[in-house]
Amino acid sequence: MPLTLSERALSISPSVTLAVDTQAKKLRAEGLDVIPFAAGEPDFCTPEYINDAGKFAIDAGITRYTPAVGTLDLRTKICEKFHRDNGLEYNPSDIIVSNGAKQVLFTALSCLVNPGDEVLIPSPCWVSYPEMVRMAGGTPVLVHGCEENNFVVTADMLAPHVTEHTKALILNSPNNPNGCIWTRADLQAIADLAVEKGFYVISDEVYEKLIYDNEEHVCIASLGDAIKEQTVVVNGVSKSYAMTGWRIGYAGGPRKVIKAMASFQSHASSNANSIAQYAAATALSCGDVYIKSMIQEYDVRRKLMHRMLNEIDGLSAQLPKGAFYMMMNLTKVIGRSYKGTVIDGSTKFAELLLNEKRVAVVPGLGFGDDNFARLSYATSRSNIVEGCKRIGCFVNSLD
Amino acid sequence: MPLTLSERALSISPSVTLAVDTQAKKLRAEGLDVIPFAAGEPDFCTPEYINDAGKFAIDAGITRYTPAVGTLDLRTKICEKFHRDNGLEYNPSDIIVSNGAKQVLFTALSCLVNPGDEVLIPSPCWVSYPEMVRMAGGTPVLVHGCEENNFVVTADMLAPHVTEHTKALILNSPNNPNGCIWTRADLQAIADLAVEKGFYVISDEVYEKLIYDNEEHVCIASLGDAIKEQTVVVNGVSKSYAMTGWRIGYAGGPRKVIKAMASFQSHASSNANSIAQYAAATALSCGDVYIKSMIQEYDVRRKLMHRMLNEIDGLSAQLPKGAFYMMMNLTKVIGRSYKGTVIDGSTKFAELLLNEKRVAVVPGLGFGDDNFARLSYATSRSNIVEGCKRIGCFVNSLD
Repeated sequence: MPLTLSERALSISPSVTLAVDTQAKKLRAEGLDVIPFAAGEPDFCTPEYINDAGKFAIDAGITRYTPAVGTLDLRTKICEKFHRDNGLEYNPSDIIVSNGAKQVLFTALSCLVNPGDEVLIPSPCWVSYPEMVRMAGGTPVLVHGCEENNFVVTADMLAPHVTEHTKALILNSPNNPNGCIWTRADLQAIADLAVEKGFYVISDEVYEKLIYDNEEHVCIASLGDAIKEQTVVVNGVSKSYAMTGWRIGYAGGPRKVIKAMASFQSHASSNANSIAQYAAATALSCGDVYIKSMIQEYDVRRKLMHRMLNEIDGLSAQLPKGAFYMMMNLTKVIGRSYKGTVIDGSTKFAELLLNEKRVAVVPGLGFGDDNFARLSYATSRSNIVEGCKRIGCFVNSLD
Repeated sequence: MPLTLSERALSISPSVTLAVDTQAKKLRAEGLDVIPFAAGEPDFCTPEYINDAGKFAIDAGITRYTPAVGTLDLRTKICEKFHRDNGLEYNPSDIIVSNGAKQVLFTALSCLVNPGDEVLIPSPCWVSYPEMVRMAGGTPVLVHGCEENNFVVTADMLAPHVTEHTKALILNSPNNPNGCIWTRADLQAIADLAVEKGFYVISDEVYEKLIYDNEEHVCIASLGDAIKEQTVVVNGVSKSYAMTGWRIGYAGGPRKVIKAMASFQSHASSNANSIAQYAAATALSCGDVYIKSMIQEYDVRRKLMHRMLNEIDGLSAQLPKGAFYMMMNLTKVIGRSYKGTVIDGSTKFAELLLNEKRVAVVPGLGFGDDNFARLSYATSRSNIVEGCKRIGCFVNSLD
């Protein structure tokens, strides 16, 4: 038969965020001083006590296969974390550990979604959600939030999109790319809708620890036994403990779903790195002192970037409540030109900004809204000052 | 809609080898002296120079995201390895690095196989191959090899099973579970068939370095440009460098296939552990001195286990040519009884042997042949002596 690729492979778009970040890193490797507003990772280093745990694991010979779902020790520490932070009671058998939260999400969708099933996704959303749904054969149904309401998509907004084919909803609070947070009341209404209509909730809470101004993080699974029984709670150590390269994500959920995910993973990749599992167990069991100091610094940067962007004539941004991203509103610059080239959307804006001013931002098109660009403030204050100056200079030069 | 699992999830059987190994490890953790003939990993520790590289990576802050396909440094080292060992010329853009060779195989099949496509698999075969094909929506077509011909499945045996739906063939030489090796002539005939009929070859060569008696390892992709253009060569550092827990597998292949796999992986999991990537690059670029000493020891164990098993009345095993597995022929014990329980197949045999004599072996049923059990000799000589004694004792007690 013809040597073709699968329909699945042909339908996938590569990750836009990773592509921009890779291009920016490449320019930097060439010696250019690119301002990294595109990165989706902390600029902090992994804390020493976690590094020490990793080196101990190597010395101790913790370099063999672990159970495909992760070591019992790490899964026990994850249960303690869910109890401590989210008021959730899980048994280690209700937990799966994967090569990053991304793999957890992919595995969960693969185990829940049949061809023809619909998955609700509040948008703007992380680029991989719709792709993962398609890879599982499902149809992503994007429900658009607007800037005026802080991008929060409520139960009332979701309800008209629920059909007999709705299999799941992907929640992401605090949110990438817009930093919004769903309140307890928002989540209660969504939980009621999910239980009434009968669909799963996949709750991606990787930015849980990164919240500001005394906002409250609420896990939807904690709102009652019924919603807990149809929610997969996804989290990881990457963002909270500056461990992106270690690749440890995890989920707690209904026993039957986790068991299916375990079988799937036992054939799709087996266990995550054994050394990283040991280090992650240490990260989860040694308190949040490190996280608190990191958040204080993010908070200063957040306010700095917010102020500087809003001082640029033609741009604006809302103050995000969580994560480390800001959505920059491009409505007033789209249609204008740079040296004869018309900025026809967020992609052209990002491309010109990177090539002309060496500032890397992610076009909002990738997240489902072409009127915005996503900026990360997980970079130094001096980078934020310099980057915002360059953006201002770029916008001021537009015709 | 009903809160069901996906058809995909419901069709998966958990990995039998991992299940047996996990159960054996559990019994050992309870203080029982289980002989680990079920394990699929070296009992050697990761060599110190590789451990040192891992610790250096942690100290150097190599703990961030890498490109989803792996670092350029590691992919360059992999190209050098393919050139050096296999006479293959690849560019780093033709290479992908994943969380173990298992993930590479899963990703390759996901990117090649459409529902309805058939994938040829010589059997007995590794448990995950048929499951991975099913997870991609395809149909595994097992072509059975027999003990008399060393389990090698030839082009002549494959040809009658090639149809217009044949999308790929999964080769695994040296083989798990039976240790056989396809000769250059065997592979040339298969390459001719694949090129003539037009199907991909996924060549899993993770046991490449583990061969005995001056046997030759041949990579099918090295047999000509045409077959190279339709072969994905899969390998990894787990078995060769005793790095199972580090989880680094890789593949070289046609640019279009690797590019599709890269997009798939960018959404399914992103990069493998960054520290392990650094350690793997060191492993691949510091010679094979360590491997040679490891093989000498495996060779002694191989002959020891082979002699002892064949001395047991009612059992037999052929001397394997590669990997670290041996297929124990159970034909003469199936149908006999242990204390009133009839041994009706390999699963019952393995279950009784583990519970009564604390020897862990993997039932051949998982590999597609219920008349065998797979034994690993990746364990100490004293374990081999003690384990074979217990097996002999068990078989002698059968009615």
